Amino acid sequence: MRAEVVGIGTEILLGQIANSNAQWISERLAEIGVDVMHHQAVGDNVERIADAFRLGLERADAVISTGGLGPTQDDVTREGLSLAIGAELERHPEIEEFLREKFRSLRRSMPEINLRQADVPSGCRYMLPERGTAPGIAWQRDGKRVYAIPGVPAEMREMMQGTILPELSEASGASALVSRVIRATGIAESKVAELLDDLFRGSTNPTVAYLASSGEVKVRLTAKAASRGEAEDLIRPVAEEVAHRLGGAAFTTGDEDLEQVVGRLLRAAGKMVACAESLTGGGLAQRLTRSPGASEYFLGSAVCYSAESKRHVLGVSKETLEGPGVVSEECAREMAAGARRVFSAEVGVALTGVAGPEPHGGQPPGQVWVALDAADVKEVRGFRAPGDRDQVVRWAEQSALDLLRRYLQHRVRS
Amino acid sequence: MRAEVVGIGTEILLGQIANSNAQWISERLAEIGVDVMHHQAVGDNVERIADAFRLGLERADAVISTGGLGPTQDDVTREGLSLAIGAELERHPEIEEFLREKFRSLRRSMPEINLRQADVPSGCRYMLPERGTAPGIAWQRDGKRVYAIPGVPAEMREMMQGTILPELSEASGASALVSRVIRATGIAESKVAELLDDLFRGSTNPTVAYLASSGEVKVRLTAKAASRGEAEDLIRPVAEEVAHRLGGAAFTTGDEDLEQVVGRLLRAAGKMVACAESLTGGGLAQRLTRSPGASEYFLGSAVCYSAESKRHVLGVSKETLEGPGVVSEECAREMAAGARRVFSAEVGVALTGVAGPEPHGGQPPGQVWVALDAADVKEVRGFRAPGDRDQVVRWAEQSALDLLRRYLQHRVRS
Repeated sequence: MRAEVVGIGTEILLGQIANSNAQWISERLAEIGVDVMHHQAVGDNVERIADAFRLGLERADAVISTGGLGPTQDDVTREGLSLAIGAELERHPEIEEFLREKFRSLRRSMPEINLRQADVPSGCRYMLPERGTAPGIAWQRDGKRVYAIPGVPAEMREMMQGTILPELSEASGASALVSRVIRATGIAESKVAELLDDLFRGSTNPTVAYLASSGEVKVRLTAKAASRGEAEDLIRPVAEEVAHRLGGAAFTTGDEDLEQVVGRLLRAAGKMVACAESLTGGGLAQRLTRSPGASEYFLGSAVCYSAESKRHVLGVSKETLEGPGVVSEECAREMAAGARRVFSAEVGVALTGVAGPEPHGGQPPGQVWVALDAADVKEVRGFRAPGDRDQVVRWAEQSALDLLRRYLQHRVRS
Repeated sequence: MRAEVVGIGTEILLGQIANSNAQWISERLAEIGVDVMHHQAVGDNVERIADAFRLGLERADAVISTGGLGPTQDDVTREGLSLAIGAELERHPEIEEFLREKFRSLRRSMPEINLRQADVPSGCRYMLPERGTAPGIAWQRDGKRVYAIPGVPAEMREMMQGTILPELSEASGASALVSRVIRATGIAESKVAELLDDLFRGSTNPTVAYLASSGEVKVRLTAKAASRGEAEDLIRPVAEEVAHRLGGAAFTTGDEDLEQVVGRLLRAAGKMVACAESLTGGGLAQRLTRSPGASEYFLGSAVCYSAESKRHVLGVSKETLEGPGVVSEECAREMAAGARRVFSAEVGVALTGVAGPEPHGGQPPGQVWVALDAADVKEVRGFRAPGDRDQVVRWAEQSALDLLRRYLQHRVRS
């Protein structure tokens, strides 16, 4: 089965918003073995929308459009689809009632214009939304399908997951494409390239590819087979080999972020962590609190931007501040110990450094010190992170999370 | 002049990467008054790439493709373009020399396969890159143009800015399209819709549109005229009218984020701020430290996730923790005063609340309290933020920044 994804909205063509829906939908379709051969994007224009549907139906078995289903006059996907399939718009009393009820429950009066959302081309089904007010539209004839769904990502995902993916998965009976990502940190990209060189070149099913970003390398394995199970069987031994070669640097073979892995390890160890941050400005705390339930392992973070606050809040010594300074091994050590003490935590993790673009505390941009303080382990590491301000911050956060991970996996010993 | 943007690469269709180039290029083209009517994306397939160029050339005056110019066998944009325009690939010795020199300067040996990058369809110009190794290709005939440039964003931008935008701008002799965004916060989307209703409906040059996200409404004015100056003259009075009607809710008519406005106001007032955060987990500190130079006005933030740390680090009273609890007006007040005291700041800002999805401290998800503490002003505000965990957090950060802004603009008095 071949599918095509059509983004509708002049704001996409003006570059005012990214057409992120196309990526999300494509990734989901790949997972169920549906081949996406083209993306299109068109503006809010009836003729051009109709042409986009016609072109999509020539090339693909299923066309999924997002956007243009709002209540206002510039939302004309309904009209464009009608034109493409030679249908007339019909007003559906059940949708009208659904809309009136939505507005009643919000205690708002419904503008008459909103009734346009009750119009559906003849011969089409409609999907009432949980979120928002825009119904989705589904059309099917001679083995060809069109789904027109809202452009608001949460509303789009709801209809994809609730209706479209199950329908297409069943209709395609397709071969499955399965991807697995192994993520590693604390290892250079060139080292990964060297360790896995034969697999990048030689492995075809699964294919092996990698992508590096600040402080992290992702290795993606993708296998194609008649079923999901078979594709997974093809991936498993290669994934094990990749994880084995990457050793301690690989932190997940699932779909977890580093902070999720750390959260899981902290929870398992029954340990509470506290942080002290300087250059990351709260970024480390934010990553540790991204998941619900973070309060089970995270106590807090002292974000101390100034030298005075490092002294008063964290108790960094006058000698350290006046000697090696705020960007130093000693300062990182004392910040980690301070975080552990101030928050009464089992583990303290601290970061100090220079985000840039200017030097700071006599140190160049990119200089980072990360320290961990626990009853059994005191550890400090320094490095120079490459890149601009954002990349240095991201790299620093990553290094602190990784030090915590390695400590929890007993890979760091004093 | 009409243009079309074609993203080339199977990884786009698999959803492995976002086609962010299309957005960036579209935004730049809009700025020089070139209308983008369609986006396309196709995989690494010679026939389909050729079809995409042909379709683009039927519909538009200029087609800009990104991607598929690498050295490996799956990069076939050169072949696809040749097929579309009926040309043959020719190897260029100057590009060959350029490639060899690039590799020499990196002290690496050049694989023979890389010479594919020296192939250019006959009758085309080429653009040698500063970054990377992939030359861009330009073709022109009977008023139609094609530019094929690399997909790596930095390499793409270099060729857009250095060659393509100047050429298209000159060729189009185009009218200029200018956009201005007025951003407002602390005001309901429906209120904005009501206040600006006549402009949304009636104003055509500039057009007036709005977009709401968590805690912020953006009003975008877009004018078209013979020159940039004329377009700006059309926008100015409408922008003033919009800002006037939105009153204190409008925080910028430029392109500043709320945290940039707050940073600018703090710097102008010569005041240092400190924060105390709970549900935002460092997000408020992070937004305040996003810009270089934040240390001129930001001292730090105590991210206190647990009740104990609110007590020990910030000095929230036992009575408050045992009475109204961690999610309360009183707790927010005491946290703000604590932040001001602990960091020796002129202004303390605090946030406490429930990010969700579970209730916390006897309060429902979305309940947020924000407080500000200064010598002259003590202010606290409570509200229920809608949406999921991420949205609630974003809304809370926004409300704290906005309270700080209004205080600095003397819009809050005790």
